[in-house]
Amino acid sequence: MRTIKLTLAYDGTAYAGWQAQASQPSLQETLEQAICRITGEQLRVETSGRTDAGVHALAQVVSFDTQTHLSAEILQRALNAELPRDMAVIAAAEAPPGFHARRQALGKRYRYVIRDGQVADVFARHYAWQLFGRLDAGAMHRAAQALVGRHDFSSFETTGSPRVSSVRTVLAIDVARDDRDADLMRVEVEADGFLYNMVRTIVGTLVEVGRGSKSEAWPAEVLAAADRRAAGQTAPAQGLILLWVRYAQGQGEDQSG
Amino acid sequence: MRTIKLTLAYDGTAYAGWQAQASQPSLQETLEQAICRITGEQLRVETSGRTDAGVHALAQVVSFDTQTHLSAEILQRALNAELPRDMAVIAAAEAPPGFHARRQALGKRYRYVIRDGQVADVFARHYAWQLFGRLDAGAMHRAAQALVGRHDFSSFETTGSPRVSSVRTVLAIDVARDDRDADLMRVEVEADGFLYNMVRTIVGTLVEVGRGSKSEAWPAEVLAAADRRAAGQTAPAQGLILLWVRYAQGQGEDQSG
Repeated sequence: MRTIKLTLAYDGTAYAGWQAQASQPSLQETLEQAICRITGEQLRVETSGRTDAGVHALAQVVSFDTQTHLSAEILQRALNAELPRDMAVIAAAEAPPGFHARRQALGKRYRYVIRDGQVADVFARHYAWQLFGRLDAGAMHRAAQALVGRHDFSSFETTGSPRVSSVRTVLAIDVARDDRDADLMRVEVEADGFLYNMVRTIVGTLVEVGRGSKSEAWPAEVLAAADRRAAGQTAPAQGLILLWVRYAQGQGEDQSG
Repeated sequence: MRTIKLTLAYDGTAYAGWQAQASQPSLQETLEQAICRITGEQLRVETSGRTDAGVHALAQVVSFDTQTHLSAEILQRALNAELPRDMAVIAAAEAPPGFHARRQALGKRYRYVIRDGQVADVFARHYAWQLFGRLDAGAMHRAAQALVGRHDFSSFETTGSPRVSSVRTVLAIDVARDDRDADLMRVEVEADGFLYNMVRTIVGTLVEVGRGSKSEAWPAEVLAAADRRAAGQTAPAQGLILLWVRYAQGQGEDQSG
C-alpha cells in the first residue's frame, strides 16, 4: 500500500461541491471515478477540507492509499487525461505512509474576490462577488486586523455546524485592491483551520465596513459577541478560492499563492 | 430618429457567434431582444464586425437607430438589467446621425491568449489556447514584424470568404509573455480591418515559429505566397478577444485595451 498526495486545481462552477450529492456531480466522485478508470480501485480520497458548491481551488490537497504501481508522475498525466477540463492535477507525489490531507494540514489560505466596478465584468461572473458602489478597501483592511489571532470565531460560523471547538488562529487577513484593475479587490484569510462558511461570513461582515454602513470597530464587536446573528451576511460562494494548504516539512509544501 | 452607439463586453462561450443561427442563440439576437423588451422596437443592430462562436469581446461597438426617448444612460442601465450575465453594455452614447459601427470603424485590435504551462489552467479553458511545450515568444514577436504594414493577407484568410480585396494594413503585432504569469502569452494584432479568421491564422502560423518547427523568416514567406495553404493552422476560437474598435474623433473613442 502506498499513499499518494495530489494537488488539485478546480473550477467549482459546475459541481455540487466537494462531497457527493444525490443530484449533481461532486468533485470528489469525479476524481474517484477517474482514479478507478486508471487503477481499477474503488477507493475514497481524503481532502484538506470540503469546499461548497461554486467554490474554486488553485491548490487543494487530496490523499489516498493505493496499490497501483504507477509512478506519481504517470498517475498525474493519466488523471489529467481522464479528468474533465475544469479539474486538473497540478502536482502528484509519494507521501509518507499514513499521510492524511485533512488531519495533517497545518493551515491554509483562501482568497475572496470582490468586484465593485459600475458595470459587472462578464468574465468574472463565476469568480467574483459583483457589488455596485465603491468599497473602502483600506477601512476593510484595518477593521479586519482585529480578527487576527487566536479567537472563538463562532460569530463567523454558519449555525448548526457541529464542531468540538470554534476556536481558530487566524494568521493574516489582507484586503487590497489590485494595482492594475481598480474594480478588483481581494480579501485573503490565512488560518490554522476554518469553520463552516467562516471566510464568506468574514467577507460579508467586512463589506459592511467597506460600504460605510458599519464602523471600523464593528468586526471586533461581532467577534466578541460570539453569536452568528451579530455578523454580516454570508458572501456568495463563487468569489471564494482555496489558494493553498500547508503541511509540515517532508509532507510537501503547497504554497503557490 | 436617433442613433445610439453601444460598447459591449461579452463572453462568447455560450453563443453561436455574433450573427443569428438556427440552433443556438446569437449575441446579436440576444441584444436585439433586450432592446425590444425596453423600447418595443423590433430593430436590427449593426456591429463593427461579426465575431465567431466562442470568440469574446472587451469592447465591441454596436450602432442602431431608435425612436426611444430614453437617455443613453438609462438605456445602458435597462439593457444591463435585461441582458444575460455574459453580456454587458459598458458604455452607451448618442452618436452623430447616420453613425454606422462597421462602415465608420477605422481600426481595431484583437488579443489572442495562449497558455503553454505543463498543466492546463482550469480557469482559462474558455479563454485561451492551451498548448503543451514552451513557445519562444521572442522568436514569434520578431517573425511577426514582417506582417506589419500594407499587404495582401490572402494567405491568412479562410478560403471561400468573398471579399473585394484582401489587402489590409496591420499597424502592430505584439507577442509578449505576461510579466507575472510565465505560462501566459498574448499575441495582439491591430489593423485597419481584418479578413475572416485572419488573427487566428496569424496566430496558428506564429505558433509554428514559437515551437521551432518553422524559421523566423517563414511568416514572411507565407505572406508572399498569397495562398491560404501556405499558412499554419487556424488557432481555436476561444483564445480570441476583441479589445477595442477605433473611430474618428467625435464618434467616440473606445480604446480601452
